[in-house]
Amino acid sequence: MKTTILIHCPDQSGIISAVTGFIHAKGGNIIYLDQHVDKEADVFFMRLESDFDPNSLDLDQFKNEFTTTLSKPYQMDWSLHLDTVLPRMAIFVSKYNHCLYDLLSRHHSGELNAEIPFIVSNHNDLEHIAEQFNIPFYHIPFSKAAKLKAENQQLALLKEHKVDFIVLARYMQIVSGTLIDEYPNRIINIHHSFLPAFAGAKPYHAAFERGVKIIGATSHYVTEELDAGPIIEQDVTTVSHAHSIQDFIGKGRDLEKIVLSRAVKLHVKRKTMVYNNKTVIFS
Amino acid sequence: MKTTILIHCPDQSGIISAVTGFIHAKGGNIIYLDQHVDKEADVFFMRLESDFDPNSLDLDQFKNEFTTTLSKPYQMDWSLHLDTVLPRMAIFVSKYNHCLYDLLSRHHSGELNAEIPFIVSNHNDLEHIAEQFNIPFYHIPFSKAAKLKAENQQLALLKEHKVDFIVLARYMQIVSGTLIDEYPNRIINIHHSFLPAFAGAKPYHAAFERGVKIIGATSHYVTEELDAGPIIEQDVTTVSHAHSIQDFIGKGRDLEKIVLSRAVKLHVKRKTMVYNNKTVIFS
Amino acid sequence: MKTTILIHCPDQSGIISAVTGFIHAKGGNIIYLDQHVDKEADVFFMRLESDFDPNSLDLDQFKNEFTTTLSKPYQMDWSLHLDTVLPRMAIFVSKYNHCLYDLLSRHHSGELNAEIPFIVSNHNDLEHIAEQFNIPFYHIPFSKAAKLKAENQQLALLKEHKVDFIVLARYMQIVSGTLIDEYPNRIINIHHSFLPAFAGAKPYHAAFERGVKIIGATSHYVTEELDAGPIIEQDVTTVSHAHSIQDFIGKGRDLEKIVLSRAVKLHVKRKTMVYNNKTVIFS
Amino acid sequence: MKTTILIHCPDQSGIISAVTGFIHAKGGNIIYLDQHVDKEADVFFMRLESDFDPNSLDLDQFKNEFTTTLSKPYQMDWSLHLDTVLPRMAIFVSKYNHCLYDLLSRHHSGELNAEIPFIVSNHNDLEHIAEQFNIPFYHIPFSKAAKLKAENQQLALLKEHKVDFIVLARYMQIVSGTLIDEYPNRIINIHHSFLPAFAGAKPYHAAFERGVKIIGATSHYVTEELDAGPIIEQDVTTVSHAHSIQDFIGKGRDLEKIVLSRAVKLHVKRKTMVYNNKTVIFS
Repeated sequence: MKTTILIHCPDQSGIISAVTGFIHAKGGNIIYLDQHVDKEADVFFMRLESDFDPNSLDLDQFKNEFTTTLSKPYQMDWSLHLDTVLPRMAIFVSKYNHCLYDLLSRHHSGELNAEIPFIVSNHNDLEHIAEQFNIPFYHIPFSKAAKLKAENQQLALLKEHKVDFIVLARYMQIVSGTLIDEYPNRIINIHHSFLPAFAGAKPYHAAFERGVKIIGATSHYVTEELDAGPIIEQDVTTVSHAHSIQDFIGKGRDLEKIVLSRAVKLHVKRKTMVYNNKTVIFS
Repeated sequence: MKTTILIHCPDQSGIISAVTGFIHAKGGNIIYLDQHVDKEADVFFMRLESDFDPNSLDLDQFKNEFTTTLSKPYQMDWSLHLDTVLPRMAIFVSKYNHCLYDLLSRHHSGELNAEIPFIVSNHNDLEHIAEQFNIPFYHIPFSKAAKLKAENQQLALLKEHKVDFIVLARYMQIVSGTLIDEYPNRIINIHHSFLPAFAGAKPYHAAFERGVKIIGATSHYVTEELDAGPIIEQDVTTVSHAHSIQDFIGKGRDLEKIVLSRAVKLHVKRKTMVYNNKTVIFS
Repeated sequence: MKTTILIHCPDQSGIISAVTGFIHAKGGNIIYLDQHVDKEADVFFMRLESDFDPNSLDLDQFKNEFTTTLSKPYQMDWSLHLDTVLPRMAIFVSKYNHCLYDLLSRHHSGELNAEIPFIVSNHNDLEHIAEQFNIPFYHIPFSKAAKLKAENQQLALLKEHKVDFIVLARYMQIVSGTLIDEYPNRIINIHHSFLPAFAGAKPYHAAFERGVKIIGATSHYVTEELDAGPIIEQDVTTVSHAHSIQDFIGKGRDLEKIVLSRAVKLHVKRKTMVYNNKTVIFS
Repeated sequence: MKTTILIHCPDQSGIISAVTGFIHAKGGNIIYLDQHVDKEADVFFMRLESDFDPNSLDLDQFKNEFTTTLSKPYQMDWSLHLDTVLPRMAIFVSKYNHCLYDLLSRHHSGELNAEIPFIVSNHNDLEHIAEQFNIPFYHIPFSKAAKLKAENQQLALLKEHKVDFIVLARYMQIVSGTLIDEYPNRIINIHHSFLPAFAGAKPYHAAFERGVKIIGATSHYVTEELDAGPIIEQDVTTVSHAHSIQDFIGKGRDLEKIVLSRAVKLHVKRKTMVYNNKTVIFS
């Protein structure tokens, strides 16, 4: 039985020794250990993949002892994940289809170890793609008047389907504080610029106007401040004076889908940790 | 005899045909032609490398006829450069040495077809490097009180040495409007961020604080607005949570020197044209 | 009416002037001109996008005069393409679906200006994807015994559907000389390595074995010699000791689909020319 | 006092716990731990940076106990390095100066934590650069006749100056088995291609001939088989049909110097381990 344990706590001497000793004593075999210390914030981060004999491990007892022996004395925030439990992701889209196609074809190919209980959109342009891939599609219009109602419908769907995290696959709407509070560091957005350059609307137009020689895309966790959440993944591609805004948009599509998929995979594999509005990525 | 002609003018039908016909009629062989139309601004750009028999070309007559036949009717801004005339570049530095070392070792290896009449600095930390490479070094302190005096000294040196363009190789001082007016689109700066992100002071600190996964460097022509001039060249490199600000600075040094050298080479080869605060780079 | 003219011929002085003069005389407006001289082979290449008033241009007469005035005296190989005529591409696949999904979703989004009359495969694993996108799918088994028969079936389909070029989207079969002769420089393959490294079978295994730090993908025109045809496009991504062969394959999938799509787009836009087993790419 | 411990041994359960427990018991604070298991070879690798109070650590006793308690029972190959002891690197050059300039200017700037007791060359073209940087320079001609004598002179110099590792900064000569045996996995070469493509002589010419769209450089440890040793670092840059062989060489120079410097830094920081002709790079 493979487990992944994520830990962060105030830094001090002896944590690695204590945790790895505990795992060893419980009969676990450590497959991979990644560790990081944020020296500015004095915080210790660890990700541990371990293998246990499922017959000899009592999970509840393990958690209790871990809490008593380690997490309390070291003031740890920690979580344990079994690789048999797939996280459940909802996809929010608007009218652009490239990120949706990319996510669904990866999922369909078995590349993405998550369940996709549904897709939601404020338009019904992409319903046929949901149908192509046999994923339930909900059309929830998002007019100014009915914003609150729409959000409540979204929240009800998320609860009903026990969604673990949300992917905004070029959703084009600002997500409200209510939703963010329900899913802290669990809403993944793709922004079509190399943040923090060109935050906000129409980043390709702004990049064209500024005459940059490289454009980018950024995937980040959504926070209350627009396009300012913890960055998970970024990538770039070169452009030149010969490229029009349409060319920027076309080249950008490839970046967006690749960067978003990488971020979603990192999240699904529990390789991301968030602290002080930044991420630790154990890739 | 190799000539490079740079042209920009309002776009209209027939320019390429007219110019290439003229060159052909004068006995020139076109080696390379690059052309671009900025469709937003309706401006035509062209760069032409041609080969002429030096015995049969009267340069003054060529220029006169080009003016009468082409540049006036088509309202061209144009310039002609002989590859036998090396542009003269002054280097401004402060205390960082990596860009200076890179430029001087390239120059010394014959990689950079320019003359370097002198290096100027507000400190004398790098004088020994100038000596290593046998380039005259002028130390002009740049205190707040003596700013105007210092600038006048700089201007006098530039005039005296018939300098064509200036390279700010991590100069760390803001260049005044007077100097910019004397050298419009002929002062090349290296900024240690992926502009427009992190303009201004301490960009690596700001990038670290924001938690970006990619850092960059940008070489641009200096204009009155800080770090907002036409971008010549940019490049990036990946960083992670494991990198400290010192690591950012170290990785950035490699970017800075490569990006600055590329920009200087493009300028020296007359492959850059500027319009509407953007560059056309015929690379 | 937009036309694209491709030319290659022995290099000599005056070609650009002659061709652009001809276009101008016929009332055409040159939108973009790209030109290259292979100095080793002394061959001149040009790609010209021009705009004509459809009412005043007699296409047959244009072609006749171009032949008499230019192509004969300059010994040109040339072709003229109208942007209203979409090239017809057949897709050959085997069992891997990522490149197929990528091509079809781009086509579906209007990103790929080509017609796809059919998909053919030696297996029927991907038939459901063809159905998802409403493209006819032919299953032609490719056993050793029935190889010749299978090829004849393929050729018949290609003829019947007036196919212009073929995309091998991870087809996994060696294409015979007969097919290559019918479609010279018109069969595009994606090889999952940075050619010429790791030609042939199982390149990711070979790359893993060699301990490289970067893997790549290469799209090329198919020639008789395996994986040795003219390269259209390449790209790479970094790997480390921490990646398994499965990780190489996963990262490679993203490269393969992006590189193949870029190559297909370049071909569709008639931006590729082939000479001496190399490509000139006017991107 | 900062120590770096490198370990590799047959993989088994409990190693991390045993080693970190030992460090903790000896009063050490683990600053960074990197670990890897080669699942094919069943080998465990670890790199540990720890901080000790210099007054309370008896280094000899520590080593003895480590050997008894850990290295013997776990059959470890291990080494311990103090960050106060700088490794001593000899630089071998021929006629190209760009890698030498890059290494020396980094060393001069304090970027490279190594000592450079001397530079050796089979030509004296670069003697003036050694003088610029005040590093002793030895000219040992390498004619076919005097090859053995030259090697013995090299070996004597290396011994005399207690050299830890050798950097071949575009040395252009094949290093003999004798030297390799004396410095196993401690001779760093830069090859001017993306290995394994274009091993051997004139790789830029071969790359040009093949028409690749990307060129690279590879730094590796030297083994008896030419250009086939464990790869430390690789990087690439794009090229096009418009680039001549001279352009390849020019672009390649920048790659070579950056890739070689990165590899040398990784070696100096003891972040490289070698196994089965591959490297584990804890970067």
